[in-house]
Amino acid sequence: MITEQLINPRSIVVVGGSNDIFKPGGKVLKNLIDGNFKGELYVTNPKEDLVQGIKCFRSPAELPYIDLAIIAIAARFIPATVELLAQFKNTKAFIILSAGFSEMKDFEEGKILENEIVDSINSVNASLVGPNCIGVLTPNYQGVFTLPIPKLDPQGCDFISGSGATACFIMEAGIPNGLTFSRVFSVGNSAQLGVEEILKYMDETFDPEKDSKVKLLYIENIDKPQILLKHAVSLINKGCKIAAIKAGGSEAGSRAASSHTGAIATSDFAVNTLFRKAGIVRCNGREELIYIASIFMHKELIGKNIAIISHAGGPSVMLTDSLSNQGLSVPHIDNPASKELLTQLFPGSSVANPIDFLATGTAEQLGTIIDYVDNKFDEIDAMVVIFGTSGLFTVSDVYAVLDEKMKHCKKPIFPVLPSILTAKKEVQEFLSKGRINFPDEVFLGNSLSKVFNTNAPAELNPRLPKVDTAKIRSIIENTKTGYISPVEIQNLLDAAGIQRVAESVAENKSDAVEKAESIGFPVVMKVVGPLHKSDKGGVFLNIKNKKSVESTFDKLMSIENASGVLIQQMLSGTELFLGVKYEEKFGHMILCGLGGIFIEIIKDVSASFSPVSEKEASDMIKRLKAYKIFKGTRGQQPINENKFIEAITRLSALVEAAPEIIEIDLNPLLGTSENIVAVDARINVLKTN
Amino acid sequence: MITEQLINPRSIVVVGGSNDIFKPGGKVLKNLIDGNFKGELYVTNPKEDLVQGIKCFRSPAELPYIDLAIIAIAARFIPATVELLAQFKNTKAFIILSAGFSEMKDFEEGKILENEIVDSINSVNASLVGPNCIGVLTPNYQGVFTLPIPKLDPQGCDFISGSGATACFIMEAGIPNGLTFSRVFSVGNSAQLGVEEILKYMDETFDPEKDSKVKLLYIENIDKPQILLKHAVSLINKGCKIAAIKAGGSEAGSRAASSHTGAIATSDFAVNTLFRKAGIVRCNGREELIYIASIFMHKELIGKNIAIISHAGGPSVMLTDSLSNQGLSVPHIDNPASKELLTQLFPGSSVANPIDFLATGTAEQLGTIIDYVDNKFDEIDAMVVIFGTSGLFTVSDVYAVLDEKMKHCKKPIFPVLPSILTAKKEVQEFLSKGRINFPDEVFLGNSLSKVFNTNAPAELNPRLPKVDTAKIRSIIENTKTGYISPVEIQNLLDAAGIQRVAESVAENKSDAVEKAESIGFPVVMKVVGPLHKSDKGGVFLNIKNKKSVESTFDKLMSIENASGVLIQQMLSGTELFLGVKYEEKFGHMILCGLGGIFIEIIKDVSASFSPVSEKEASDMIKRLKAYKIFKGTRGQQPINENKFIEAITRLSALVEAAPEIIEIDLNPLLGTSENIVAVDARINVLKTN
Repeated sequence: MITEQLINPRSIVVVGGSNDIFKPGGKVLKNLIDGNFKGELYVTNPKEDLVQGIKCFRSPAELPYIDLAIIAIAARFIPATVELLAQFKNTKAFIILSAGFSEMKDFEEGKILENEIVDSINSVNASLVGPNCIGVLTPNYQGVFTLPIPKLDPQGCDFISGSGATACFIMEAGIPNGLTFSRVFSVGNSAQLGVEEILKYMDETFDPEKDSKVKLLYIENIDKPQILLKHAVSLINKGCKIAAIKAGGSEAGSRAASSHTGAIATSDFAVNTLFRKAGIVRCNGREELIYIASIFMHKELIGKNIAIISHAGGPSVMLTDSLSNQGLSVPHIDNPASKELLTQLFPGSSVANPIDFLATGTAEQLGTIIDYVDNKFDEIDAMVVIFGTSGLFTVSDVYAVLDEKMKHCKKPIFPVLPSILTAKKEVQEFLSKGRINFPDEVFLGNSLSKVFNTNAPAELNPRLPKVDTAKIRSIIENTKTGYISPVEIQNLLDAAGIQRVAESVAENKSDAVEKAESIGFPVVMKVVGPLHKSDKGGVFLNIKNKKSVESTFDKLMSIENASGVLIQQMLSGTELFLGVKYEEKFGHMILCGLGGIFIEIIKDVSASFSPVSEKEASDMIKRLKAYKIFKGTRGQQPINENKFIEAITRLSALVEAAPEIIEIDLNPLLGTSENIVAVDARINVLKTN
Repeated sequence: MITEQLINPRSIVVVGGSNDIFKPGGKVLKNLIDGNFKGELYVTNPKEDLVQGIKCFRSPAELPYIDLAIIAIAARFIPATVELLAQFKNTKAFIILSAGFSEMKDFEEGKILENEIVDSINSVNASLVGPNCIGVLTPNYQGVFTLPIPKLDPQGCDFISGSGATACFIMEAGIPNGLTFSRVFSVGNSAQLGVEEILKYMDETFDPEKDSKVKLLYIENIDKPQILLKHAVSLINKGCKIAAIKAGGSEAGSRAASSHTGAIATSDFAVNTLFRKAGIVRCNGREELIYIASIFMHKELIGKNIAIISHAGGPSVMLTDSLSNQGLSVPHIDNPASKELLTQLFPGSSVANPIDFLATGTAEQLGTIIDYVDNKFDEIDAMVVIFGTSGLFTVSDVYAVLDEKMKHCKKPIFPVLPSILTAKKEVQEFLSKGRINFPDEVFLGNSLSKVFNTNAPAELNPRLPKVDTAKIRSIIENTKTGYISPVEIQNLLDAAGIQRVAESVAENKSDAVEKAESIGFPVVMKVVGPLHKSDKGGVFLNIKNKKSVESTFDKLMSIENASGVLIQQMLSGTELFLGVKYEEKFGHMILCGLGGIFIEIIKDVSASFSPVSEKEASDMIKRLKAYKIFKGTRGQQPINENKFIEAITRLSALVEAAPEIIEIDLNPLLGTSENIVAVDARINVLKTN
């Protein structure tokens, strides 16, 4: 749990505070002092009377009541100290900087010590951050033992990091651009509070007036994906934006993460699917996280049409490429207002977009251009202003106009100030007004595109199609762990309302003939029993008469492990694929795609976690590389998208009713403009009791 | 042409030099003085006697002989000045900074003035850089009127830019990381010397002992692709590395580039194809160009196995993801030497790769690790060292060891020093030793992967298969502009040795029957005349007897514009595609892929410019997303790759013999494990005389 004392303590003690500011206990005290902590600040150190000008207690036992303890003593002394503070000093928040706990894989005592501490703290309903962390930064106090300290501002970013050093390096990347922070939590070993718990706290206490709307995460391990999903969605629905690095997605990266923070391997595909459902922008590195966060700190991008305003052609061209190659647009501007604007610029300027007002362009002209774009160019949703210097003139006046316009414009303005050396002073002045710079226009373009292409969160409890839950439960309760029989599959699909081909299993030749005749020729015949039927010659298509049924029956029954023959209606259509895969902790992933080479060669698969709404199902289909095929291509009929959406949501309803299902493979389904019909299916069930 | 006087002038005059260093003529003079130009420096200005402490001539006529003139006076005065200097002052090099020439689209006189100047300069075999440029930087002189001035060093980057402001902003991005430059050319309007000519000069005068091996280009317009290709390949074959931004590739970007530098639209696909053939690393922005250039300034990456050495887990994990998701590898290390190394590190360290020597790791340990990796870990090709600080200790000693090891190690070492604020002093000290920093590990990973995945240049004059050139020429010379007839196509393919299906055009019914019988049933019948045959019901497959031939003939001849019926052998196999497309100035692009949905939906096409070697053809096939299909997938036979390579190179030989061919479409060819046979073909010829 997170207590008020962790966020806004009235008193703090540094246990193990020191005069040596090159030790954690010295440095954290110095940072607290430098940050002008407004409450009471205490220090304990068995050997000192005065530490950095503050009266020092020889033992924690001598302390008065204390809200928050920041602990920087050796691991083995910590349990007793925590117990004392928790029991006798009313301490409700602990930040343990020291290492030497569960992160030491070959030191079993570390885990034992850590558990003792957590028990003490839990017993008094207090908070614990760490151990093995850099600490906590809030506008109230600078409780970290590291540098850099960013500019703290209630409207800056809230940042939760699963790695302390990485948190420092992320701030190193953000500070030069002007990025500010509100609260920074380094969770260390996450003994009590992990990234998920802190995000949950931020959601449950969210105050739209006072709290930051930008949340950043660095994660190597998603231990509680459902909590992450729930609170990320809730925060975003309250107007927040979330960007996250989830490192360790590659096979080698997963090994590295496991060695670093003990992360458990999670499929990167599952992480992408979770983040997409949550509406989290996934970032691949520190610099990208910083750019995305910086975009979030500006007005929201609500349309795809960008005006680029610059005195330099090259960066405008590169940015135009970046945006328009990734789904955004730099539309040609040509209207009466733009013609009027052109007359107010120097000869040779262009307003066609990019708006180029030449190397000699003035601050006043920039102001005029921005006003025109904001008020008169309805086709434009946002602006990027690229303005540097060749060193011949100061750009202070230009940046002052830019700052002023950013205050008042309705549309977002993203500043690219590339002359970070030559115009260093002017850029710093601009940043000191609370502004943020994007030094590289292409990186901005890539990041803007990424933000724009991230969907809003999905509905977490969508209405699913009605399925026959009683029948589904009865089938599941009467089956065993493993792949279920064709008849049970039929019954499950029927109960879920998923259309399937007319079919029947025959156990002898005359039965086969009778069933084929009742289904109607032509039919398909498939062996029942062996896996990988088609590899073993176990599938025959287009069987047109009784005689062929009889001879085919014999052939199929001669295959090893054959237990019967499935007789199916022969259908045509485009091969589609639907699937379910259960991911430990994450839940049931619903997958869709086209069949055949699209799934086998191109790996063109979309996914979402169940429950899947119609909107999500529709997005899944539209995300397919082969989506065009649904619309009908040369000579091929279109595929009924609504029926495919329905099949996806019904599959989701099926696994919601029967979470014991860990795998479904409907491959192929045949899609036409009329219908989507499952032709072959496998269902795997895991019963834990 | 480029004269020695442009590169290494003994004397320079600034025409229009000024005491006002916020004017180009003042600033360029100041830069020349600040750069300690070793030769004679002159100034002309009609109103001054002394400019920035240098004796000033009232008129160029008063000057002695001058090697290089840097001109910063109004455009209309320049032709006379240039003529005077060229004719009477033996001036062999001109840099014209002033604008007001052909870049002014609505000012026709500008182009006329520019032509006059070029004529004067050409008449004395002198060089011209500009007009409308920022100038030239070399270790010999700082002839630009802009800032920043990078550290100039003969082993720094050679940089040629089609945009002056962009050149400045690229240097702004590179200097903070420690990137140095040798020569910087801003070509402006490229009135005489463009990017291609300067690259050609660098190639023709290349001195492996003295010249920089790293060439950077910023281009919006590839006017002479063949020159670019030839000299890029030649330079790379001499040991150089080339990275280039070609901006304006998107449709909107192309419009923007045309407005900026008058660039002509070139398909981005053609540019990628050209760069791939040349071995140029294509970059998408300034920051990426800087990272790639910085990689080039290190020892060459010759294998894909990277060791990551760090005291911080997070960046190591992110870098591991970046590398291993893009074709490089961070292999697990476990050998006797690594076990020995582990004993020399603090408990809790890991040598499994990433090599993590903990937050408490020392400079000495870093040295030990690097030595082990360099000398004892044969499986490793290169190292990335990530080392920052939490602010508790100085990292000078660590960076000193790093610098020392980089001098002596056989394997490349790429330093990531993320604490650019907290360890600012130490990072600066490291850079002052000539080192380069990569502040973001993921950006380094992406860039390393890009470099590693760029092939060596192609052979420019490969041996092509022998084709019947006489026959090809005779067919081409006897045909007209436009799509050629089926019979001519047959003859051309036969002359080129490209296997085609047995086929024959029938003009009447009995002829059709006769030809079908001679080819052998079953046959395919296709209408001759209309385009888009299959859309119009103009293709019938699997015709098995005389009667069907007759009825099908009637159906086909009733189609509008039908002029005959093509009878073809009925073949089976995987549908493949081969094509030729002539790109203005670039030449004949040879394309290959799989047919059907792969080309229509997935756009899975590889290309190279003719002449295409076997190696290139093989790489084209391997680059296909659907390459797996060549190897045979479940239930499908493989495709004969060698035969497909041969077909590609024969197609290349065909267009080399007949450059009048502007388009070939072999779609489909049918591929089996035995053979590749063209089934349908279109060939379009453009005769210019």
